[in-house]
Amino acid sequence: IVSRLPAVGTTIFTIMSRLAQECGAINLSQGFPDFSAEDVLFERVAHWMRAGHNQYAPMAGVPALRAAIAAKVEALYGAAYDPEHEVTVTAGATQALFTAVAALVHPGDEVIVFEPVYDSYVPAIELQGGVVRRARLAAPEYRPDWQAVRALVTPRTRMIMINTPHNPTGTVWTAADLAELAAITRGTGIVVVADEVYEHIVFDGQLHQSVARVPELADRSVIVSSFGKTYHVTGWKVGYVLAPWELMAEFRKVHQFNVFTVNTPVQLALADYMGDASRHLGLAAFYQGKRDFFRAGLAATRFELLPCAGTYFQTVRYAAISDQADTAFVDWLTREVGVAAIPLSAFFGDGRDEKVIRFCFAKREDTLAAAFERLQRFC
Amino acid sequence: IVSRLPAVGTTIFTIMSRLAQECGAINLSQGFPDFSAEDVLFERVAHWMRAGHNQYAPMAGVPALRAAIAAKVEALYGAAYDPEHEVTVTAGATQALFTAVAALVHPGDEVIVFEPVYDSYVPAIELQGGVVRRARLAAPEYRPDWQAVRALVTPRTRMIMINTPHNPTGTVWTAADLAELAAITRGTGIVVVADEVYEHIVFDGQLHQSVARVPELADRSVIVSSFGKTYHVTGWKVGYVLAPWELMAEFRKVHQFNVFTVNTPVQLALADYMGDASRHLGLAAFYQGKRDFFRAGLAATRFELLPCAGTYFQTVRYAAISDQADTAFVDWLTREVGVAAIPLSAFFGDGRDEKVIRFCFAKREDTLAAAFERLQRFC
Ligand SMILES: CSCCC(=O)C(=O)O
Ligand SMILES: CSCCC(=O)C(=O)O
Repeated sequence: IVSRLPAVGTTIFTIMSRLAQECGAINLSQGFPDFSAEDVLFERVAHWMRAGHNQYAPMAGVPALRAAIAAKVEALYGAAYDPEHEVTVTAGATQALFTAVAALVHPGDEVIVFEPVYDSYVPAIELQGGVVRRARLAAPEYRPDWQAVRALVTPRTRMIMINTPHNPTGTVWTAADLAELAAITRGTGIVVVADEVYEHIVFDGQLHQSVARVPELADRSVIVSSFGKTYHVTGWKVGYVLAPWELMAEFRKVHQFNVFTVNTPVQLALADYMGDASRHLGLAAFYQGKRDFFRAGLAATRFELLPCAGTYFQTVRYAAISDQADTAFVDWLTREVGVAAIPLSAFFGDGRDEKVIRFCFAKREDTLAAAFERLQRFC
Repeated sequence: IVSRLPAVGTTIFTIMSRLAQECGAINLSQGFPDFSAEDVLFERVAHWMRAGHNQYAPMAGVPALRAAIAAKVEALYGAAYDPEHEVTVTAGATQALFTAVAALVHPGDEVIVFEPVYDSYVPAIELQGGVVRRARLAAPEYRPDWQAVRALVTPRTRMIMINTPHNPTGTVWTAADLAELAAITRGTGIVVVADEVYEHIVFDGQLHQSVARVPELADRSVIVSSFGKTYHVTGWKVGYVLAPWELMAEFRKVHQFNVFTVNTPVQLALADYMGDASRHLGLAAFYQGKRDFFRAGLAATRFELLPCAGTYFQTVRYAAISDQADTAFVDWLTREVGVAAIPLSAFFGDGRDEKVIRFCFAKREDTLAAAFERLQRFC
């Protein structure tokens, strides 16, 4: 067998979660909460199942859910997406990103990504014969360098994939960043794919700068978000895509032959649940509390805390604790200290070791406190 | 925008289901039951949700479900698949097929399909730069012509996609067919992708000839099946893949960056539900009753009934009723008669019109009876 993705191994999230389980470590690696969603959400799923809504949803998603998504986006970002032609429900954000790339990147097209880059982007691009161009987000601020991005653009550039709030670094892009992006892509055929799955997790009163807020940019963008991250059900695998209809038509051509559609009763339940906007609007304060608690707990260690303006991830530099490579360090941390984390090198094409690792703080206070106890002892 | 799939429109299933709904027609087009699954299955989903199993499942699927799948396959087909490395749960069979093609077909590789061909196969192949080679299944028996298949094989042939029981024609392949397939692929690098989603719906005491029964063939095959078809929950979008580990390793490389994983509480519920084998073993008799009822109802029309050895689809020739093209005929049937069906031309690359349409009989008796009443009046 000649592999289509010879450089690809098992995703770092599977590796670290598996190791954490084997070692009985506290799993602060893969990004998911260890607390429950609300019973009312489960009750809605059970309701729609018992009511007999268990057959194929329309390909683009249940109308009520698409309408609820469009209403939220209009309320938050002032953007009008037509639920019929410009909103599609997906089997999670990962499937949305994969499908957007498959639908829009032709073999030989260049795609600009920002490193550290979420680990699914590059394989998705390379599988379609796309050529990856990497812009650096430099520690400790991990902000885009627009001059450098400009230098990467060529007539072959087909797509720029962005991610704000940014996983793994927690950076939140500004309106000025979007203005730069708009300027760079103006008058080109470049499509922006904006991974905004942490849109509701932005701290310190900052606003999430959705691409949807900038009409000119939104006109050439595919925006991706996630219910799993927002409603504490990462295992349900439901996300969505917004795009102007010409782009969405191409997206759906692939979507319909990739997954076709998404779990019907779960979609109906999410539509009910979304009606109460406090559920997503309350998320920022909720996770800001966890971020502050987590940073306070780590203050008593030799970890150097990097900024965290959004997401539920905290990056730290461990150079004062160890000079091991980050992969060796997280291995030690998981096995010996009993706390699993993600090495940032997993998000660099060249495996660059910046002595930075990522913790997920979407955990109960007692889980985080138990982690502090171990980290404070060894680190 | 230059489309990656210029020839692709909206899938025929979406078109016909939408038209049926607009016209208030009885929808015998898209393949799904109009009766409910058992409450106990819903109860298991609710149980696992309330028990807090709502975060990411392992990438390949919940271990209990993979074990249950492997046990079923061993019991039915005598094949031993290692649940750890050779079974993967997917977001439906369509995603499994799409991912298998993406993982294994390189640009320029040739893939043999059998026409009439399920509508997701060809776009999946063409998106990866694969070259489609079409073998005919000729009416009214729709059996493979192995001499013709042999003539299509070249050194560039990378994959043969088969489907038994066959949608849309209801043909069930024999052990002799699999022996031919084994002979043709012996000593080549050809991978077989076997779509067996109707494995439990085979009539008249015939046995489903799973590729898993033929060790030599199974060694170079990816087998796809579906829980939606088997447990009357097509809208849940859960299927699975079996493959020897070298092939599965490639499959998972793409799967992990396509959907990553599948709804956790639904997987756990299916694992519980699968424990009672009578649930899938009883399916053949259940649908045979519906087939016989449906054929009896159509006997009082001028439709010519073609054979139906498996699946929940009945194909009919309508030449005695109308000389319209099949697309025009189903349009008339939906709008004027009030019964929606699928035109077989949708499954031919050249849109060939054989004056054959497909009805889905996975419906309650009263639904079918209401359809008879209309069809008997007009046809
Ligand atoms: C798809 S598993 C990874 C979850 C996640 O988004 C992360 O940990 O970064
Ligand atoms: C994915 S919708 C189509 C369902 C089906 O398998 C069919 O009708 O053939």
